[in-house]
Amino acid sequence: MNLGVGVIGTGAIGEDHIRRITDVITGAEVVALSDINAEHAKKVAATYGAKFYATSEEVIKAPEVDAIVIASWDPTHAQYVIASINAGKFVLCEKPLATSAEDCKKIVEAEIAGKKQLVQVGFMRRFDRGYKQLKSVIDNGKIGQPLMLHCVHRNRVSGPKHTTEMNINNSVIHEIDVLRWLLGEEYKTAQVLVPKSSRLAKNGLRDPQIVLLETQSGVRIDVESFVNCQYGYDVQCEIVGETGTVRLPDPANVVVRSQGVRFYEIFPDWSDRFIEAYDTEFQHWVDAVKQGLVKGPTAWDGYVACITADACTEAREKGTIVPITVPECPPFYQ
Amino acid sequence: MNLGVGVIGTGAIGEDHIRRITDVITGAEVVALSDINAEHAKKVAATYGAKFYATSEEVIKAPEVDAIVIASWDPTHAQYVIASINAGKFVLCEKPLATSAEDCKKIVEAEIAGKKQLVQVGFMRRFDRGYKQLKSVIDNGKIGQPLMLHCVHRNRVSGPKHTTEMNINNSVIHEIDVLRWLLGEEYKTAQVLVPKSSRLAKNGLRDPQIVLLETQSGVRIDVESFVNCQYGYDVQCEIVGETGTVRLPDPANVVVRSQGVRFYEIFPDWSDRFIEAYDTEFQHWVDAVKQGLVKGPTAWDGYVACITADACTEAREKGTIVPITVPECPPFYQ
Amino acid sequence: MNLGVGVIGTGAIGEDHIRRITDVITGAEVVALSDINAEHAKKVAATYGAKFYATSEEVIKAPEVDAIVIASWDPTHAQYVIASINAGKFVLCEKPLATSAEDCKKIVEAEIAGKKQLVQVGFMRRFDRGYKQLKSVIDNGKIGQPLMLHCVHRNRVSGPKHTTEMNINNSVIHEIDVLRWLLGEEYKTAQVLVPKSSRLAKNGLRDPQIVLLETQSGVRIDVESFVNCQYGYDVQCEIVGETGTVRLPDPANVVVRSQGVRFYEIFPDWSDRFIEAYDTEFQHWVDAVKQGLVKGPTAWDGYVACITADACTEAREKGTIVPITVPECPPFYQ
Amino acid sequence: MNLGVGVIGTGAIGEDHIRRITDVITGAEVVALSDINAEHAKKVAATYGAKFYATSEEVIKAPEVDAIVIASWDPTHAQYVIASINAGKFVLCEKPLATSAEDCKKIVEAEIAGKKQLVQVGFMRRFDRGYKQLKSVIDNGKIGQPLMLHCVHRNRVSGPKHTTEMNINNSVIHEIDVLRWLLGEEYKTAQVLVPKSSRLAKNGLRDPQIVLLETQSGVRIDVESFVNCQYGYDVQCEIVGETGTVRLPDPANVVVRSQGVRFYEIFPDWSDRFIEAYDTEFQHWVDAVKQGLVKGPTAWDGYVACITADACTEAREKGTIVPITVPECPPFYQ
Repeated sequence: MNLGVGVIGTGAIGEDHIRRITDVITGAEVVALSDINAEHAKKVAATYGAKFYATSEEVIKAPEVDAIVIASWDPTHAQYVIASINAGKFVLCEKPLATSAEDCKKIVEAEIAGKKQLVQVGFMRRFDRGYKQLKSVIDNGKIGQPLMLHCVHRNRVSGPKHTTEMNINNSVIHEIDVLRWLLGEEYKTAQVLVPKSSRLAKNGLRDPQIVLLETQSGVRIDVESFVNCQYGYDVQCEIVGETGTVRLPDPANVVVRSQGVRFYEIFPDWSDRFIEAYDTEFQHWVDAVKQGLVKGPTAWDGYVACITADACTEAREKGTIVPITVPECPPFYQ
Repeated sequence: MNLGVGVIGTGAIGEDHIRRITDVITGAEVVALSDINAEHAKKVAATYGAKFYATSEEVIKAPEVDAIVIASWDPTHAQYVIASINAGKFVLCEKPLATSAEDCKKIVEAEIAGKKQLVQVGFMRRFDRGYKQLKSVIDNGKIGQPLMLHCVHRNRVSGPKHTTEMNINNSVIHEIDVLRWLLGEEYKTAQVLVPKSSRLAKNGLRDPQIVLLETQSGVRIDVESFVNCQYGYDVQCEIVGETGTVRLPDPANVVVRSQGVRFYEIFPDWSDRFIEAYDTEFQHWVDAVKQGLVKGPTAWDGYVACITADACTEAREKGTIVPITVPECPPFYQ
Repeated sequence: MNLGVGVIGTGAIGEDHIRRITDVITGAEVVALSDINAEHAKKVAATYGAKFYATSEEVIKAPEVDAIVIASWDPTHAQYVIASINAGKFVLCEKPLATSAEDCKKIVEAEIAGKKQLVQVGFMRRFDRGYKQLKSVIDNGKIGQPLMLHCVHRNRVSGPKHTTEMNINNSVIHEIDVLRWLLGEEYKTAQVLVPKSSRLAKNGLRDPQIVLLETQSGVRIDVESFVNCQYGYDVQCEIVGETGTVRLPDPANVVVRSQGVRFYEIFPDWSDRFIEAYDTEFQHWVDAVKQGLVKGPTAWDGYVACITADACTEAREKGTIVPITVPECPPFYQ
Repeated sequence: MNLGVGVIGTGAIGEDHIRRITDVITGAEVVALSDINAEHAKKVAATYGAKFYATSEEVIKAPEVDAIVIASWDPTHAQYVIASINAGKFVLCEKPLATSAEDCKKIVEAEIAGKKQLVQVGFMRRFDRGYKQLKSVIDNGKIGQPLMLHCVHRNRVSGPKHTTEMNINNSVIHEIDVLRWLLGEEYKTAQVLVPKSSRLAKNGLRDPQIVLLETQSGVRIDVESFVNCQYGYDVQCEIVGETGTVRLPDPANVVVRSQGVRFYEIFPDWSDRFIEAYDTEFQHWVDAVKQGLVKGPTAWDGYVACITADACTEAREKGTIVPITVPECPPFYQ
């Protein structure tokens, strides 16, 4: 029996998730959808045989909808997540969970009040083969205790609406979540270095930036964020432990020798780089929801990521080292 | 509406395909199955909610079965494929299509007589990302006209029933199919070199072997087959063209530095190496069957592979260069 | 006509340089030497056919000595360099030029007073093929303007006398020199992050450390210094520019596939890693000296490196960002 | 005391060896030279301070000449080697030792008659770091007993005088020598496959070719020879043993990420690729000659290489498998 999924937001990412649920993973189908661009949403509904609703609230309440996927504009995430909780339905919300830590906190409180975990946040890197292998190497003690992490997160070019804040909120937030998950501990301080900006970063954008995080136990993390690196989409992660190091491989592309060089292609885009992670994320979510469980990153994880990103932004603006104060994790989420 | 699949053979590969159809791909479900080991088959049926049938013929005829997957003992393939054709049902048969070219020919004749393409052979490498990239590089002329192919197909250890013939019939047959597909042309001659055997190859097994193929246009191919290489499962393929070369990458595994070396793991097994190719193969097959089409390797491809493998075996036994005589491809398969 | 070289210090490095001058490079021979361990020095003298002198001052003054190599205990460097200048002889001094910026300054002043450049500092990385290629890529604009440098400098284990200060003075000082040379500009600030220490770093050693440098133009550099990484000697350097990145390769060692992994060896030691750079450094030095010139890193470069290292140490001790104040480069050195 | 070297042939390779003896290695100097192009030879003599002689015979006899390097036109090698033997002088002869096995045999006989080993052949690959590492891995049993070797020898473009024979005589002859040295055994049979030729190979040249060799113990070797591969100079060698494989690395060049790809450069030319091997070869030769010894590849090795190359050429011309009959190695060379 397929899980009936309602999708809120049918922009590029939302439509890709609809394709994924329909054509790639098993056990679910998109039965309802909505978008502020009603015209496009109706076309998508027709293509995939789902019902179009005028409002997201209707999608959430629709009886054929067992679970919800939120892929709408970031500022709308919080209200739809809370509405889903109130409707008692499982919800997978694209990152960020909300645009402020305050709103994340409200979601956490609503979920605790409802006495049932329902919310998963779309931090898909936890489902990437490479990151899972990194975690396995660490957890099996193969490189000793981790001491340092060197990370890189590069995009080819930033979109016209990209801001200096978004290097952290929108991009490094993936590292904020996945590194915390890899290490199994919380952050203590944040600092942000702002190198000379690339002349190819327009409109006063400060790009690149280097985020420095310190964990409770003293692990030091550096994350280069560079959203106008020009050459491709590139995610790197090296963990340095007491007895060895481990790092993500590049994706496996064929190796060509021609015109004086040996080369392989780097993906231009995150959607190619993490396509398998997204597929796995959705399959796992559907499988867990059918068991009545949330097994992926929780609302609490979304909240902590938001607190951390806020501290990074403050650190960048003030040019100082900023403490990251994460409340104690409620038993509900442990 | 899910495609109802009947699976013949619930050994290791058959059961893995049942899991794949059930848990991984979309649009199909296993509704019926059979196996000579009835006891195990009943358990699998219970686990996956499929109906157990005492005979494969019953599975093929069962009204709830829309399409058939054959994963039984190689010598039984031909009869079940023909039964499927006679029942007018689509069938995906694990390689080899049959254990003799003669039997392959009967299948081809039966399919032509039935006037509808129904048979796909389980040459999953055509669905592997790496091989698809190789084909794209060749077809786009990026290395000029191919002149030579250097291939390697290594298994860690061979099973107790492995024979000298099986290096070709069972292992190199994958290269026989996929290289012909890559190049878009037929083979002309075969030769087999038999190096000194590894002392770890037991019972008189001649292992490794080197298969040399020549295509109609004069491309030269060498395929090392080594089923007791000890270190892992390793498939390599390099195409040398007039202006450059392209080769398969190793699978992307994390890179560790420890104890004086930099290393990454090599998969121990074909099932890890080609898991994504199998998933893609099955999804494509299901999607095509729902459209009433065969889009993967056909019975004709299975026939040609068998003819070629037979020529290689003859070449090895006689120690000579043997011509490969492929009949002209009937319009039905063009 | 061979250059007559006097070597001060016949410990491990000194003796290796004697071997290098004698057996590897051309145009020079070791004619005189001294060491506080007179007994060992006499043996070395006998082996290589050089004259043993009781004091370094005698070596410097000896008429058969055209040029001097200093490979003695760090605290003695300054006095022997100044004595060499006073003797009007060319001198190649192993890094550091002196153990304090103050002493470096005295050397610079003595050399300027002598009106002839005579001093070269043993920053051999400038002669490494990889670093030279990095410089060529930058200088040819192939990755645009550099924005960030990510560097790693790891040793297998530290010696018994290694101190927390030496991670910078003795190890990172190589990066301090070579990165400044790569970028062609001076540093502005220093900061040092101190991660959780490895439990394999004994006696209260703070290891690893991360040195953060900012250049005058705003390039940001991070250098991981880890002298107890256990797995080998490993030097990495990645330069991120506006349109691409470039990084040092690992040394070329044969690639083995066995026991489930694909690996190559990492050198255990700096002497293997940089053997070619040392050879080149000495050949270039001899060739330049014969032309009456200093073409490698100068006393001024040694002075700036020392000032920078001191700022890093202060930054580590105080836990703050420390400005690096380099005096204006005298015309003598431009 | 420097070894006085006389160089016969001051073309590109000869002049490079003169530079090498003068500027790179230690313990030798070029004191005499000759060339059929007297004008150019005189210039080279002036540049390097050597004496020009009108004939090679005079160089060989000149009293200041302790040892001879032959880098003249291939057909002249034999006579100058024999003249050197007759003069009782050590000689390093560029490969091939002679242009026929018959002439090689005469050299061997002359050397045996003279009762002293004097001849070394310029098979410089034995001095390449990579090949030495391969030998070490084999000899230490790290991959078990070798069973197969897969080799590639590619040049960017062939010169105007290149002939189909020269793919073997001039190019694969390096593999013929170095593989025999790696394995420590003799060849038994040769076969040559001739793929479709590249349309970029002009004047009827058959290029590429694939040489198949079988050793006495049954190791199988394939060597791709492709002298018009367009993209660069590329030498590959993989040894497959019973428990693992080992292969040459690419030379270490910096790794660039830009314009959608990750790449490193492949050397355009053998002179870049093997520059270190040539340097090492000459230093070893000079050091051994000073000890009165030949430690590199001998006249016998040159003879065996010639016999093997002749068998390959016969195999290519006849299209058959040709036995390689190497006489028993005289005790003189064991």
